[in-house]
Amino acid sequence: MYLIDPESQSEFFYDLESLAERVEELVSGKGYQKLSLLLKDLPAVDLAELCEQLSREARGVAYRLLPKELAAEVFVEMSAELCRELIESLTDAELRETLSELYLDDTVDIIEEMPAGVVKRILKQSSPDNRAQINELLRYPKGSCGSIMTTEYVRLTPDMTVDAALRHIKRVAIDKETVYTCYVTDKERRLIGLVTAKSLLLSELDSELSGIIEENVIYATTAEDREEVALKFKKYGFIALPVVDNEGRLVGIVTVDDAIDVLSEEAEEDFAKMAAITPTDDEYLKTSALSLFMARIPWLLLLMISATLSSTMLGFFEAALIPVLVLFVPMLMDSGGNSGSQASVTAIRALSVGEIRPRDWYRVISKELLVGVLAGASMAVVAFAKVMLVDRLIMNNPEVTVAVAVAVSLTLFATVCVAKLIGASLPLLAKAIGLDPAVMASPFITTLVDAVSLAVYFVIAGFGFGLKLQ
Amino acid sequence: MYLIDPESQSEFFYDLESLAERVEELVSGKGYQKLSLLLKDLPAVDLAELCEQLSREARGVAYRLLPKELAAEVFVEMSAELCRELIESLTDAELRETLSELYLDDTVDIIEEMPAGVVKRILKQSSPDNRAQINELLRYPKGSCGSIMTTEYVRLTPDMTVDAALRHIKRVAIDKETVYTCYVTDKERRLIGLVTAKSLLLSELDSELSGIIEENVIYATTAEDREEVALKFKKYGFIALPVVDNEGRLVGIVTVDDAIDVLSEEAEEDFAKMAAITPTDDEYLKTSALSLFMARIPWLLLLMISATLSSTMLGFFEAALIPVLVLFVPMLMDSGGNSGSQASVTAIRALSVGEIRPRDWYRVISKELLVGVLAGASMAVVAFAKVMLVDRLIMNNPEVTVAVAVAVSLTLFATVCVAKLIGASLPLLAKAIGLDPAVMASPFITTLVDAVSLAVYFVIAGFGFGLKLQ
Repeated sequence: MYLIDPESQSEFFYDLESLAERVEELVSGKGYQKLSLLLKDLPAVDLAELCEQLSREARGVAYRLLPKELAAEVFVEMSAELCRELIESLTDAELRETLSELYLDDTVDIIEEMPAGVVKRILKQSSPDNRAQINELLRYPKGSCGSIMTTEYVRLTPDMTVDAALRHIKRVAIDKETVYTCYVTDKERRLIGLVTAKSLLLSELDSELSGIIEENVIYATTAEDREEVALKFKKYGFIALPVVDNEGRLVGIVTVDDAIDVLSEEAEEDFAKMAAITPTDDEYLKTSALSLFMARIPWLLLLMISATLSSTMLGFFEAALIPVLVLFVPMLMDSGGNSGSQASVTAIRALSVGEIRPRDWYRVISKELLVGVLAGASMAVVAFAKVMLVDRLIMNNPEVTVAVAVAVSLTLFATVCVAKLIGASLPLLAKAIGLDPAVMASPFITTLVDAVSLAVYFVIAGFGFGLKLQ
Repeated sequence: MYLIDPESQSEFFYDLESLAERVEELVSGKGYQKLSLLLKDLPAVDLAELCEQLSREARGVAYRLLPKELAAEVFVEMSAELCRELIESLTDAELRETLSELYLDDTVDIIEEMPAGVVKRILKQSSPDNRAQINELLRYPKGSCGSIMTTEYVRLTPDMTVDAALRHIKRVAIDKETVYTCYVTDKERRLIGLVTAKSLLLSELDSELSGIIEENVIYATTAEDREEVALKFKKYGFIALPVVDNEGRLVGIVTVDDAIDVLSEEAEEDFAKMAAITPTDDEYLKTSALSLFMARIPWLLLLMISATLSSTMLGFFEAALIPVLVLFVPMLMDSGGNSGSQASVTAIRALSVGEIRPRDWYRVISKELLVGVLAGASMAVVAFAKVMLVDRLIMNNPEVTVAVAVAVSLTLFATVCVAKLIGASLPLLAKAIGLDPAVMASPFITTLVDAVSLAVYFVIAGFGFGLKLQ
């Protein structure tokens, strides 16, 4: 919802579709002044979405009517295709102007999605100083803290007064991603502490900066995993975090908006992996059916082949045991799979947000075993009652004996316990050997537990209760 | 990682366990001055974790040695039990002092977790003005924007100069949750626009505030869903968002740290629901096995009973069709379940982060159908080859005829297509009728698709290919 000042803006649109129509209308009627007024106060994210809906011509006109700074912000929010199209349509001078308005971490994000020719042009039109910093940022591996940081922060020195600091901020702020946390370094650029804009605003102008420096600073290193850095924002509620290199020198900062993006990307990745899908960054409606298919089919095939194990088990089973036992196979398989999924999803998320570590395995396993015993026992009792009442009494199936009901219940109990153990252990094991725990997700656990539950059933019913053919 | 200034702090601890030991040591040796120095620069979140590990006595001593403001922050971060214990141990004067340092939204969060007696005492020791605001905040329903907002923001009027605004901030800032975004209202407290601290810092002192007011403000309403509000932070990268009531009057703000908490809580809730677990707020290692059991068992029982449907199907199946067909049941069930899970998890997340809405159903369904046809066809081909090569040729099973292989492949194709449709439709349907899409998660889809795949198998193999007994 927008607050629209009736004086500054005479038109109001509730959705982007109708706004897009109006823009097309104004472009074809050459109502450029009206169009400029209409667009100048919209948020950049919404303007980028608007551009996606406009014709190529209207898009070009609308983009050029935006105030320079806003145009650069819109540029950052566009999809990769639109961005490339736009860069190709800009003159060198226009591109240079846009680039000079961009924050360096945004430029780097754009570069990472552009083809080589466009990247060359972007680097050519950047100032030499910016080019050096962009190349530096591009060197950090994907997924590292360095890859999400920006080099545009406010740096102060401990010998300044509050007044000098404020004057320094006034001079450099326009190019900085945040001025609300400023960092204090020594002559070798080593991080000494931080000063917040709030404490500057509350201090007397002639007081020494050293009196308001917070020296106990939490920081990240360039090589740190970006997810761990994002979790620090969640834990401590920062709006920015300093990043230092191996020598403790301040090289950049990460801001809270980038941390939020990392947290949601990582959560979406976990969701995808848990449903056995290769994670992609794209929005659902913008992803083609072919891409969705490609992200899903390898896992479906792999899991289908793995399920053969259960089929083989069932083959042995069918040849050896009395037929009525087959009736309870779907219930046993599903219950085992569900119990295992609960344990694995819980363990994967707890690992992912840092609530547990592999060295906590003993506490996790013993807790899950206890849960398995409780859940298995309750389910066994219910299953026994259901088999005796429904299958034996109501359906009047003479093959369903008390021995069958007990065998089914005991199998269920054992399967649930084993499923909880497998579900909790495999993610821990994956993490311990350096794999992503999320690959040990429900579908894999289910496939494995299916085979296990059949084996348990076979042993209990066949050997324990002698429910064999002849 | 902390940056520790060697002069201000002589000791350094790499983990909380060793720090906790040292604190206990200092408390029993009455080294209070040293202890105070040791604790005064630690982040509040870490101090709260430390308190959890200390003995009751050491905790009381350590807490009282903290600077007042820090003590209040620690208070907010503690677990509900510790918080209650602490409140009970504080004198009325101490409690009053702590409460006066708290932000109101934090006080409300604490109140919501305390027993009635403690709540009464908190309200009694709050100032009358704060008590009124706390009662106001407590009235907003859980899950609404009103329930996560705070009433402590900086309010400016449009007739101020920049200098007057800065002086106003200096006077009131100490009690405000953020000073970096200030809100401009008219005399009726209706929201006119906002002013950032950055623009104040960059402006001349004698200039009019009206020149730097941003009038096109995105805002939320008190009744709005807190997840939608949090998604605005993610989309636009705000550090604060104004909240207005039905008459457009500014009643509070939401800050980015609370938005991050909402985003992660909502994601964790979706993870839990997708694994058929009742969501809880507690950390894994702090949750008892009994609580885990209680959160999981209702769904396990429900799903177990639902799986009876598949068992009943299998009963018909077994009585009517040739036995070899049973061998492929686990593979068909698993493949259907996995295909359905992929579609449902994708749809649930896309709904949850606002990428799709129920009215996009046609695009979603047609896309998933296309994916289902592609995936089903690939899997059918692979399954056909596998059955013919492995089961017929290598295992030399005479019952596996070409008709059986074709029936299995066709069933697989149909099951995958249906599973994709069910997996994508049910979350959309749930959302459309006002339910939480996440309840249509993998386990339910799997149970439903299991029964469907058996029915399809029955029809194709029995009627299509006449693979009946006799």
